[in-house]
Amino acid sequence: MRDTLYIINPNSNQAVTAGLDKALNIFRGPGVPRIECVTMVDGPAGIQSQLDVDKAAVLVQEFAHEHQQNALGFISACFSDPGLHGLREMQGVLSMGISECAVLTALSMGQKFGVIAILPNSIPRHWRMWSAMGVHERVAGEVAIGRTVAQLSDEHATLEAMQLAGKQLRDQYGAQVLIMGCAGMASFREPLSQALSMPVVEPVQAAVSMALGRLQLGWA
Amino acid sequence: MRDTLYIINPNSNQAVTAGLDKALNIFRGPGVPRIECVTMVDGPAGIQSQLDVDKAAVLVQEFAHEHQQNALGFISACFSDPGLHGLREMQGVLSMGISECAVLTALSMGQKFGVIAILPNSIPRHWRMWSAMGVHERVAGEVAIGRTVAQLSDEHATLEAMQLAGKQLRDQYGAQVLIMGCAGMASFREPLSQALSMPVVEPVQAAVSMALGRLQLGWA
Amino acid sequence: MRDTLYIINPNSNQAVTAGLDKALNIFRGPGVPRIECVTMVDGPAGIQSQLDVDKAAVLVQEFAHEHQQNALGFISACFSDPGLHGLREMQGVLSMGISECAVLTALSMGQKFGVIAILPNSIPRHWRMWSAMGVHERVAGEVAIGRTVAQLSDEHATLEAMQLAGKQLRDQYGAQVLIMGCAGMASFREPLSQALSMPVVEPVQAAVSMALGRLQLGWA
Amino acid sequence: MRDTLYIINPNSNQAVTAGLDKALNIFRGPGVPRIECVTMVDGPAGIQSQLDVDKAAVLVQEFAHEHQQNALGFISACFSDPGLHGLREMQGVLSMGISECAVLTALSMGQKFGVIAILPNSIPRHWRMWSAMGVHERVAGEVAIGRTVAQLSDEHATLEAMQLAGKQLRDQYGAQVLIMGCAGMASFREPLSQALSMPVVEPVQAAVSMALGRLQLGWA
Amino acid sequence: MRDTLYIINPNSNQAVTAGLDKALNIFRGPGVPRIECVTMVDGPAGIQSQLDVDKAAVLVQEFAHEHQQNALGFISACFSDPGLHGLREMQGVLSMGISECAVLTALSMGQKFGVIAILPNSIPRHWRMWSAMGVHERVAGEVAIGRTVAQLSDEHATLEAMQLAGKQLRDQYGAQVLIMGCAGMASFREPLSQALSMPVVEPVQAAVSMALGRLQLGWA
Amino acid sequence: MRDTLYIINPNSNQAVTAGLDKALNIFRGPGVPRIECVTMVDGPAGIQSQLDVDKAAVLVQEFAHEHQQNALGFISACFSDPGLHGLREMQGVLSMGISECAVLTALSMGQKFGVIAILPNSIPRHWRMWSAMGVHERVAGEVAIGRTVAQLSDEHATLEAMQLAGKQLRDQYGAQVLIMGCAGMASFREPLSQALSMPVVEPVQAAVSMALGRLQLGWA
Repeated sequence: MRDTLYIINPNSNQAVTAGLDKALNIFRGPGVPRIECVTMVDGPAGIQSQLDVDKAAVLVQEFAHEHQQNALGFISACFSDPGLHGLREMQGVLSMGISECAVLTALSMGQKFGVIAILPNSIPRHWRMWSAMGVHERVAGEVAIGRTVAQLSDEHATLEAMQLAGKQLRDQYGAQVLIMGCAGMASFREPLSQALSMPVVEPVQAAVSMALGRLQLGWA
Repeated sequence: MRDTLYIINPNSNQAVTAGLDKALNIFRGPGVPRIECVTMVDGPAGIQSQLDVDKAAVLVQEFAHEHQQNALGFISACFSDPGLHGLREMQGVLSMGISECAVLTALSMGQKFGVIAILPNSIPRHWRMWSAMGVHERVAGEVAIGRTVAQLSDEHATLEAMQLAGKQLRDQYGAQVLIMGCAGMASFREPLSQALSMPVVEPVQAAVSMALGRLQLGWA
Repeated sequence: MRDTLYIINPNSNQAVTAGLDKALNIFRGPGVPRIECVTMVDGPAGIQSQLDVDKAAVLVQEFAHEHQQNALGFISACFSDPGLHGLREMQGVLSMGISECAVLTALSMGQKFGVIAILPNSIPRHWRMWSAMGVHERVAGEVAIGRTVAQLSDEHATLEAMQLAGKQLRDQYGAQVLIMGCAGMASFREPLSQALSMPVVEPVQAAVSMALGRLQLGWA
Repeated sequence: MRDTLYIINPNSNQAVTAGLDKALNIFRGPGVPRIECVTMVDGPAGIQSQLDVDKAAVLVQEFAHEHQQNALGFISACFSDPGLHGLREMQGVLSMGISECAVLTALSMGQKFGVIAILPNSIPRHWRMWSAMGVHERVAGEVAIGRTVAQLSDEHATLEAMQLAGKQLRDQYGAQVLIMGCAGMASFREPLSQALSMPVVEPVQAAVSMALGRLQLGWA
Repeated sequence: MRDTLYIINPNSNQAVTAGLDKALNIFRGPGVPRIECVTMVDGPAGIQSQLDVDKAAVLVQEFAHEHQQNALGFISACFSDPGLHGLREMQGVLSMGISECAVLTALSMGQKFGVIAILPNSIPRHWRMWSAMGVHERVAGEVAIGRTVAQLSDEHATLEAMQLAGKQLRDQYGAQVLIMGCAGMASFREPLSQALSMPVVEPVQAAVSMALGRLQLGWA
Repeated sequence: MRDTLYIINPNSNQAVTAGLDKALNIFRGPGVPRIECVTMVDGPAGIQSQLDVDKAAVLVQEFAHEHQQNALGFISACFSDPGLHGLREMQGVLSMGISECAVLTALSMGQKFGVIAILPNSIPRHWRMWSAMGVHERVAGEVAIGRTVAQLSDEHATLEAMQLAGKQLRDQYGAQVLIMGCAGMASFREPLSQALSMPVVEPVQAAVSMALGRLQLGWA
């Protein structure tokens, strides 16, 4: 029986998956499809290189094919949307990516969006995505906070770094809305938005929201 | 108390409003904000010219300002999104347009979208919207069925005309997904999609779906 | 008898209209159509919000329909070109907008143009216009001087602020030509151009110049 | 004394120059700068290849430098705008090109413009111009009538070929306005516009109109 | 010792690899790096779906990491360039993709290029690549011959189908140069070019040519 | 007998030609076409204005027509690619431009390229080229070092200025690869690349490399 929307964390970090899961409680309730966050235990510890993205793309699709029987849909929950276009070639399930959904959401919140990246080397990869989406005109710019996974655990310093990046995107690059360019940092969204007085999109929540809406409509 | 999502039909045709209302039953249920479809009785009989759009833009915003107290959000339910950007300058409510939402939805369903218009003279206006949205690269094309309001009431012939337009958009223009470029024709979506074996976006449902998701997140 | 080119100031500020009128003396003379600047007394005091733009769009078109009998043409004289595309659906008259004409003029003066805005919140609206025009590649950027209407009356300080914005557009954004993003400041054009050693486009004069040329050709 | 606007026919065909001259009578009158059409006797018989364009570019600029003393401005009157950007590096004179002006005029007449070319091999060259201008989004397409210079002299057949091309641009390519992609055919503009019920831009008249407007403003 | 340029056929079809190898004899000679064509025996029989592309991306990169010691460079020899951007994150080797190189070559041969695809479902994937490359303005269009692998072995019929597609791209889409959107069909290039009197790019030869040039320069 | 690839320095500065020649020794060897660098003695001392470019365009083409008998191909060796599109209309020879080839090479080295110009007034001209090429999305920006020909001879200071410009392009404009926007400075490529830890494209070598590859393939 198809009853589950799978949120696929393509890395092997269970703490990240737990973070995703917690941020999705907002959606859970009677009449709502089951939302299950899963970890790719064979995935990389974190998605940092293009090779990580490509491996994740395969893992995500293999997971989807194995769980197709009881799946309503799949969400690729890494900001490079690994496997998204392959998932979409599967019939009868809905597939979304957190990066694409974050952009589609931001496009209705401001004329130009800015993106806060974790690592600078992901920026060219992100530009390829935005250009492939045909939305490059709407990109104000991207700024990386340049913190390692270890450094990210210092939440105070991380939030501060994100605020600095967001301020630069707002004041120098001309962004009216921000996208958090990573999964698993949903708790920073509200304080970031408050501090900068501008809308901020958290990509996993954006994707689950769009996916649940699409499932309700039956437009897989 | 803010508890209602208003779907504003900017023309004065109550039958259109009733049609919208019926197509939105799919969303109604416990825990879901009240969805109320309203008619602009001072609006034009149909939105055909740019002047109609501009008048509708003002009516939509005036309605919104009058109902701001109990509104969670507003949806401008005409395919030219009259008043959308003005609604967005209101604080504390969510505002969406059916045309923008249809496009944002279609962008996750195919690389190029085609649009079925009712009247040919709306096509340049639509291109201005898509270019303003910065998504022109993704537009396969638009084809008008060229039927008057009176002719639209012949449902069989109208559906046939839409299928012909859709076929042209798919086979000659290279569209992988279609958008119905009008409000109030939700009943045609499923047969059109079946007949052409491709996804079809109904803009009002697309907009309400996105809006309810955003209200749930509290990202006004 | 059709003999007048109407310059429609869509706000209710008669001083602005008087300023427009004065700046158009350069065009008046024998054999030239009558140029009449009119004030929309029911318009907003100034066009600041999108709602102001939308209301102005209707007022401008209503004025045009009332004066169609003796009009050669209409110019929407606010930098958001309220009502322009609706005016163009009227048969037998010429319609131009000051913002569009300023851009078309600037495109023949430099590869990238910069725009000096009055208020920062108009910038996203302007980007929508430039993208709808399909000329976004040519935009170097826009900088707002951020002065209120009251502050604008201090001409010395206003000119200084415009020079600073222009310098930034020239040196940091790479503009070769500037557009003054507002009506009614024609007297600043020459000193601004001199101070920055670069061409500057005043949008109302640009529009009237193009309109008179088109009337002479009879290409309405 | 600077008193003349030179219209430079860069080919050596005096009949073409005479045709240009006749089409510009509409602009002549008291208080209007002298408009003088000149033939480049060392130019090619017709501008057909890119080498022709490049040679014409030099001839046009050499003429301009020789006549700078009494020139108010120069118009490069070939649809490839030979020498335009070099002319613009001259101080104190205004320089315009008929192709650029035709486009700038058409941009205010319809969302997408179509171009009627004489020879098919000029089409890639024209696309380079439109892309360099950053207006490619606005191009509906270009269709060549494919007639040689000798064949052009059969006016009836030429007009018919232009109507066919225009109809194709309107009905298949989606153009709302046409540009005649050549100099010296002004007499066809009105019948073409009538036959197709759509606006048609004649590039030489468009350029002279814009140039006279700019000279009046003193914005060289 | 680094001495080999690897051409990676990401599918498991050794006949395809043999075909590639034969087409590269043109490059072999004294002083030229060793060119070795390899088959991914664990790869799919043919790259048809996005999942095939994603699996190929990983295989290609794994091969590259295993052979990094003696590799001068790697070429991903499938028209979807699987693994290309990941290969480029490897230090000290050169990496090219046949699709990207075909486009870069075609950009110097005509203003608009057309692409002959094998299967229609690859067209949206190709558009994502061209948009990601930022060259969509230069694409005239793509036409699929719609032949299965089995059908491709009928060389006469395949060439005929390619000629028909090419003619359509030239005459209806406005292409001045064609790209063969597949690997392993180098023998068709010359007859196709002759039949259509226009340049045709074979992507594997285009890529090896660019790669050898870059290796000679030492710009890895 | 056609045996020579001509590298045409369109200015009259023989020292520049000698510099080009030296930088091309890397390509010379048995089995390689003769590479001959030639000086246009009637050309300008340096290509600085658009008129210089246009004159060079004619000289380059005249040289090519005179040497067509024994030419395999021609390279226009000035960063404005004078005469390139005209050369391409010659049958039976290959023609390339150093600017176009530098861009095509850079497109395979990073998502956004930055360009180091010598003189600021060439920047708008370069933007026209990149837009005409349809690659503007990929341009990070251009920075001029602003040194005169005399100043360029101070190699130490010139390299330092190029490093500063490159650093700005990398850190502020977001370039991942640099293009040297001039001919004759090949000796700076390696130190620049080392100092900035990023790939740098020298346009003349890039062009000769691509041209030799194309000649080997016989795709003129």
